[in-house]
Amino acid sequence: MSRTETIVAPATGQGGAIAVIRVSGNEAFDVTDKIFRSRRGRVADADGYTILYGSVMDGDQTLDDVLVSVFRAPHSYTGENSVEISCHASTYIVRRLVELLINAGARAASAGEFTQRAFVNGKMDLSQAEAVADMIASASQADHRIALNQMRGGFSRDLAELRAELLKITSLLELELDFSEEDVEFADRTTMRQLLVQTQAKIGSLANSFQLGNALKNGVAVAIVGAPNVGKSTLLNRLLNDDRAMVSDVAGTTRDVIEEYCTIDGVRFRFMDTAGIRTTDDRLEQMGIDRTHNAIERADVVVQVAETDGEMTTIECAAPVIKVLNKCDKSGRAAGQVDGSTVLLSAKMGEGVDALRAMLRGVVDTERLESGSTVVSNMRHYSALRSASEAVEQALAGIDSGLTSDMLSEEVREVLFHLGEITGEITTDETLGNIFANFCIGK
Amino acid sequence: MSRTETIVAPATGQGGAIAVIRVSGNEAFDVTDKIFRSRRGRVADADGYTILYGSVMDGDQTLDDVLVSVFRAPHSYTGENSVEISCHASTYIVRRLVELLINAGARAASAGEFTQRAFVNGKMDLSQAEAVADMIASASQADHRIALNQMRGGFSRDLAELRAELLKITSLLELELDFSEEDVEFADRTTMRQLLVQTQAKIGSLANSFQLGNALKNGVAVAIVGAPNVGKSTLLNRLLNDDRAMVSDVAGTTRDVIEEYCTIDGVRFRFMDTAGIRTTDDRLEQMGIDRTHNAIERADVVVQVAETDGEMTTIECAAPVIKVLNKCDKSGRAAGQVDGSTVLLSAKMGEGVDALRAMLRGVVDTERLESGSTVVSNMRHYSALRSASEAVEQALAGIDSGLTSDMLSEEVREVLFHLGEITGEITTDETLGNIFANFCIGK
Repeated sequence: MSRTETIVAPATGQGGAIAVIRVSGNEAFDVTDKIFRSRRGRVADADGYTILYGSVMDGDQTLDDVLVSVFRAPHSYTGENSVEISCHASTYIVRRLVELLINAGARAASAGEFTQRAFVNGKMDLSQAEAVADMIASASQADHRIALNQMRGGFSRDLAELRAELLKITSLLELELDFSEEDVEFADRTTMRQLLVQTQAKIGSLANSFQLGNALKNGVAVAIVGAPNVGKSTLLNRLLNDDRAMVSDVAGTTRDVIEEYCTIDGVRFRFMDTAGIRTTDDRLEQMGIDRTHNAIERADVVVQVAETDGEMTTIECAAPVIKVLNKCDKSGRAAGQVDGSTVLLSAKMGEGVDALRAMLRGVVDTERLESGSTVVSNMRHYSALRSASEAVEQALAGIDSGLTSDMLSEEVREVLFHLGEITGEITTDETLGNIFANFCIGK
Repeated sequence: MSRTETIVAPATGQGGAIAVIRVSGNEAFDVTDKIFRSRRGRVADADGYTILYGSVMDGDQTLDDVLVSVFRAPHSYTGENSVEISCHASTYIVRRLVELLINAGARAASAGEFTQRAFVNGKMDLSQAEAVADMIASASQADHRIALNQMRGGFSRDLAELRAELLKITSLLELELDFSEEDVEFADRTTMRQLLVQTQAKIGSLANSFQLGNALKNGVAVAIVGAPNVGKSTLLNRLLNDDRAMVSDVAGTTRDVIEEYCTIDGVRFRFMDTAGIRTTDDRLEQMGIDRTHNAIERADVVVQVAETDGEMTTIECAAPVIKVLNKCDKSGRAAGQVDGSTVLLSAKMGEGVDALRAMLRGVVDTERLESGSTVVSNMRHYSALRSASEAVEQALAGIDSGLTSDMLSEEVREVLFHLGEITGEITTDETLGNIFANFCIGK
């Protein structure tokens, strides 16, 4: 391990009873020992995976009584010598403790720098590192499961298998180059074609999972649309109210966005309230209606609301449409699902709303997730998979047009390049910078 | 130690990279072992002050890879067997992990329950337990120092000394009762009187420190008053802007209150913006002005603003007044302190504002704090000290009126009772309930 600067940052959120400050790097122990006194001795002399109780000193005054957890390289999150200092969660103590550690020789960590070091030190590949951020952001069972599978290396293994196959092809192709004067084909073109077609199918399957992964990660987008006064907002409130616990659990994120989320059977839905659709001469109202159409375009599911005895126009959209016939209590009809895409309910009385929930949940096919297969949820990975897929097409076209071994090898290497971008075998400082800048400080 | 239920709660705030879940009680290890798998073995077999790395299992699925810190009774915060589980700070993971622990036999902790157990198990007395909440809430050096001194038992030692003296008196008085037929005075009344007068002085000194302690804990209240349009709001913004870092550091508390705080040399000030004072027939404006007078009454310091060449009326108030002559740049006069209570400045240009800051800070005499003496900052303690003080007065009057030994002993015991309320030697379940209900969950 090369010498690294020692970095410090708070790792826990604001509030609460305790806060944890992370320190990592070559001097992590010495830096901590400069401000920490324990009857059990120095951090530098402590075993890994042990805890010291003692006091943080601010000059000759005690700042706080703390617990210091000691991790010795390489058995730490970053792979470096690290400590985690557990102190009282006061804004003053946390700020001052970080200041004291900086005065003792550490520097403030930048966003994601602890995880970046874990990547650099080979504790995880790039897709696993990215999954750490997704893990932290996860708010439902489904997006948590995607992130966990990725963090524990499920996606990495899929990619490793693909790369192993492709590397076999390139090595055979490159062997042909060594014997180029003898005009042999070590890599049988028909077999190679089959292999590439299989690779293409696997890449395609991963890329296709992005639609599900993206929806689960950001919340399945549901546009609630319909004519004015059919009860859209009552329905939205009803859907959210029964899920109030969830709403309060994610307090702290921007409120106006949060209040539109709710979780149904482990999947998070993002509800978009819209202006009622009708023909109007009012320009302002028309702008609202234009935005409704925009929401419909972005939706994964459209919930179209009308009164039970009212009219329901046909909505043109790519997403599946669930038709809600509201105010069924007024017409005396029983609430419940009518057919595959229609439900009778009373938003006001709360009747039939569970049936709508079940239908919404049914729209999201999470079988791939439940089977434990990789679900791609990261736009960067999706782009790389698309590029890899295009490169496979090029290679296939190359075979068909009788391209030479060296040219063909280049095409296959292009596929490997794009797959390698995902796990970080191939990467640039700029890419790394962009990825870790999206992390929070302290991770 | 008696058998206790095992309790669980998140101990860290929302957000951040990692979260810590606390578990404490007789079954803390067994409950954790039901959902935790580590290659290093069971929590129940681990030494205290060690850390196990492993996975939290949600049925046959992994919920998260975590670190479990193990603390064995009595060497833990609560004095019971405890673990702290450090997981990824996702709302889903934290909620689910608490659920799993509850399913495994723990129950959700109520507010302050961990600290209440520390008190019950003799790890700290009541005033120390209360200081824990103050420590967590501390946002400046000064209120942090008060809380730390109290948490580490400074106040408890003061009270113990007072109690020791008083107990000497009562034991002598009670000895007289055993020899009542012989009419002896073991406790010389003159010496006893001196002792009580000294006690009274010490209690008075502690009680008097409450004004400082309360101001430091809640922020020194500063009312900025003056005629309309003299630049009060510009001055407030100037005072706050230069301290923006502090404002952002305490984000998460209600914003409209926060923006009025700033810290000067370790002491937090709470600025109250007020309506301009003038004679008016407008009823609404008059209501605002009434509120200004109310703010003046509540202020620890009043900052009275006028234009440099303007008129300054006399404000009647108990608090010290700092006179600010604003817009000095317009009149061509140099910014800076003029006399003990007057400063020339330009809020717009930022000139002379540091002089005002120094004057504000000078109003707060923190010598008692810096000398390491106890500063009382808790209203409950202040009330108990006041009651103790009244009881001492009664005892003194009793001596002067030649009260019998047994009656006198009762009077002195009354003093002991009130001092004992502070540290919790004497307490009721209701008092305890009220105190710990004000804690946060997880502490």
